[in-house]
Amino acid sequence: MNYQAYDQYIEKHTSESIVELTRFCAQPSVSAKGEGLEECAVLLGEMLQKRGFQVELAKTKGAPVVFAERKGKNSAKTLLFYNHYDVQPVEPLELWHTPPFTPTLKSGKLYGRGVDDDKGNIVSRLFALDAILKADGQLPCNVKFIIEGEEEISSPNLPEFIKTHLDRIQADACVWECGGIDENGVPIQYLGMRGIIYLQLSVKTANRDIHSGLGGSIFPNAAWRLTWALASIKDKDERIQIPGFYDDILAPSEEDLVYLMQQPEPRARYQQLFAVPNFLHYIESGAEDLRIAGVFRPTCTIDGITSGYQGPGSKTIIPAEASAKLEFRLVPDQDPHKIIKSLRNYLDEQGFSDIQMEILGAEKGAKTDINHPFVQQVVQSTKEIYGHAMQIVPMIGGSGPNALILDALKLPIVTSGIGYEGAQVHSPNENILVDLYIKGTKHIVRILKEFSETK
Amino acid sequence: MNYQAYDQYIEKHTSESIVELTRFCAQPSVSAKGEGLEECAVLLGEMLQKRGFQVELAKTKGAPVVFAERKGKNSAKTLLFYNHYDVQPVEPLELWHTPPFTPTLKSGKLYGRGVDDDKGNIVSRLFALDAILKADGQLPCNVKFIIEGEEEISSPNLPEFIKTHLDRIQADACVWECGGIDENGVPIQYLGMRGIIYLQLSVKTANRDIHSGLGGSIFPNAAWRLTWALASIKDKDERIQIPGFYDDILAPSEEDLVYLMQQPEPRARYQQLFAVPNFLHYIESGAEDLRIAGVFRPTCTIDGITSGYQGPGSKTIIPAEASAKLEFRLVPDQDPHKIIKSLRNYLDEQGFSDIQMEILGAEKGAKTDINHPFVQQVVQSTKEIYGHAMQIVPMIGGSGPNALILDALKLPIVTSGIGYEGAQVHSPNENILVDLYIKGTKHIVRILKEFSETK
Repeated sequence: MNYQAYDQYIEKHTSESIVELTRFCAQPSVSAKGEGLEECAVLLGEMLQKRGFQVELAKTKGAPVVFAERKGKNSAKTLLFYNHYDVQPVEPLELWHTPPFTPTLKSGKLYGRGVDDDKGNIVSRLFALDAILKADGQLPCNVKFIIEGEEEISSPNLPEFIKTHLDRIQADACVWECGGIDENGVPIQYLGMRGIIYLQLSVKTANRDIHSGLGGSIFPNAAWRLTWALASIKDKDERIQIPGFYDDILAPSEEDLVYLMQQPEPRARYQQLFAVPNFLHYIESGAEDLRIAGVFRPTCTIDGITSGYQGPGSKTIIPAEASAKLEFRLVPDQDPHKIIKSLRNYLDEQGFSDIQMEILGAEKGAKTDINHPFVQQVVQSTKEIYGHAMQIVPMIGGSGPNALILDALKLPIVTSGIGYEGAQVHSPNENILVDLYIKGTKHIVRILKEFSETK
Repeated sequence: MNYQAYDQYIEKHTSESIVELTRFCAQPSVSAKGEGLEECAVLLGEMLQKRGFQVELAKTKGAPVVFAERKGKNSAKTLLFYNHYDVQPVEPLELWHTPPFTPTLKSGKLYGRGVDDDKGNIVSRLFALDAILKADGQLPCNVKFIIEGEEEISSPNLPEFIKTHLDRIQADACVWECGGIDENGVPIQYLGMRGIIYLQLSVKTANRDIHSGLGGSIFPNAAWRLTWALASIKDKDERIQIPGFYDDILAPSEEDLVYLMQQPEPRARYQQLFAVPNFLHYIESGAEDLRIAGVFRPTCTIDGITSGYQGPGSKTIIPAEASAKLEFRLVPDQDPHKIIKSLRNYLDEQGFSDIQMEILGAEKGAKTDINHPFVQQVVQSTKEIYGHAMQIVPMIGGSGPNALILDALKLPIVTSGIGYEGAQVHSPNENILVDLYIKGTKHIVRILKEFSETK
């Protein structure tokens, strides 16, 4: 098949698409803070309507889900795009070289919060549709978008949306929100994601901070209570102590391991990127490969702790309150709700019934079958663009609601996108390479066209 | 002896003294932040010079020490006052009902940071001198003041000052910075203070926060490293694990225990003040008395922890940095420097050599002999003012550099002051009762006069 017309359109109109992306990213939409979500959903709805989509801003208990659909030539086939319009918080602000909500183009890179994750991918997909509509006058098949506003806080309201929209969201295959190339320029096909549990642990031991001279040896201390509770959950050898935590883990298949070990060994690259003096002991000892441990090992991560006096110098108090953000990454078939229940029981048994648990998110992990024909088609279709077929990665370390959609719709989920190693996703100075933006857009065109023409 | 003239002067000129205190407290002097210390020392020097004192603002590596002396009638006897002009940080600001550095008089109480601790005690002492100078035209004996600006950060530069000023600061007895009545209106004589070690523990595991999806099962996490290190220092049963920590503790004497048990049992009062659901287990089990454990048990307190994301909702990162304020209260004869060394060795042995330790303060604990004649004189001299002799408390939970002065000058140290249970010292809404300000001032007059007339 000849993609010249589409590719030329994309190359010629890149600036227009980058301008649209810039406008979209200038609208803050930080789900962790509930900032700008409605406004961003309305803006996104307009962007979809402009392309002839029927749009619904579906109300939820949190941010609206933007659902959009448009019929295409082959009305027997439907491709679903899953994306999200929310972004991560921008703190620490002082580390940004350009303002996070004023996207800035410099030396072939666009900087700003969301330019990759995930607004860049959304606008790239719309740009691919523009190229097709311009050349063909219609879409090659039915296209649907589910674009939620709470992905970065573990999609608490997506299950309810899926339940109430199950008929309308039916599709034959799904393209996930993200994707991109590895550090060698090889495009990567991610087929699985870990699950996640995100919790806020908190404890209150008094109605106010108490002078530590008065009370250090008589009153409970919220910071100590939290410290001991956390230390009871995972020991310093990285063993998670919650009874049954490791019970339901499926060992990776032989095929999973083969594909994972085809990836470049990332040790030196990570050391350079993050200046880490060492990796965890099972990596350092050679007991586990970095590539396998990084995705097939469940985690327990403290994402933040706060308690008492945190300013310069000393203040002599017993903190009355302490809290921590605690996160687990789960692998198939760990059940987040079963683990949450075990954790609560375990804390109670260890004497920490004073530690309050607030669940901020809970999702299962899931994988798409490596051998599905749609997967193979998508993987081959990058050759003309990048000079390579996609490298299949059976599982990545990150999370997303792919289990929700996989379980509800029973379809294959593939990835395709505009990202690269230096994108600083979730960090200050998030950025994309305009060149990869063009390539990613071309890949979406090919996915749509080839999918539409397959029986 | 007849104190009518002094007492009448104090009662008549209270407002003037409160105005001076208000002006003094309006000058911030937060040693933890290095805020306003020089300015405050200059202001204080002027207040002392106005009373005919020779004043030196002695330079140190930190805030200046204000040293002042004036000769008196009995030139063979010298009374030393130890005070401090620095105050605790005012955060959390939102809990103050009046601005902390704008002292405000309401219903017989003056509110503001430092109105008690310790600017109120300083100005009360100057007020007592005013009353004596007005009635007698001279002081009854030599009077010296050591007023430092770093008491709230554990007096890091006072040892050097004492060493270089040893000749000039010689005295026969010392009145400590603070004092006051208990909740039944009985004035209290505090004769001992615990020592203190104040540390900042910190750890850095990468050059920036890392996406927890990417790295949760491969990279070290600063928040976990700190949590485990802290949990290794004290277990959840309050046992401090540093080898040798409990070795040098002197058991309280029979006399210490008798006096401590004469104090009212504070359980119900503390529960009401701080809304604490429970005390530590050795109190709850009845194994130790609250009054004894509160002062004769050394402590290990987390005063604050900070790491990673602390905002609303969730952010999925592995924190690159974490730090904690850690404090020990020591009893005689625990040696802070020996314990600091043991702690470092212990952390290294436990695998935490990545945890950095910064020492923000280190002081020994010390006690004055209950049977010293000066103690007995001071204790009896409150009868006319409060209707009670002072209740002797052999040791309090708080700390101060009394061991420094006690060891250097070999003199008895007593307490006298303006405080009460509701003073909210170190907390928002610090306050004094004007009535107790008058009473405390009258006590200082009696201490000076009686001390001067004793052989």
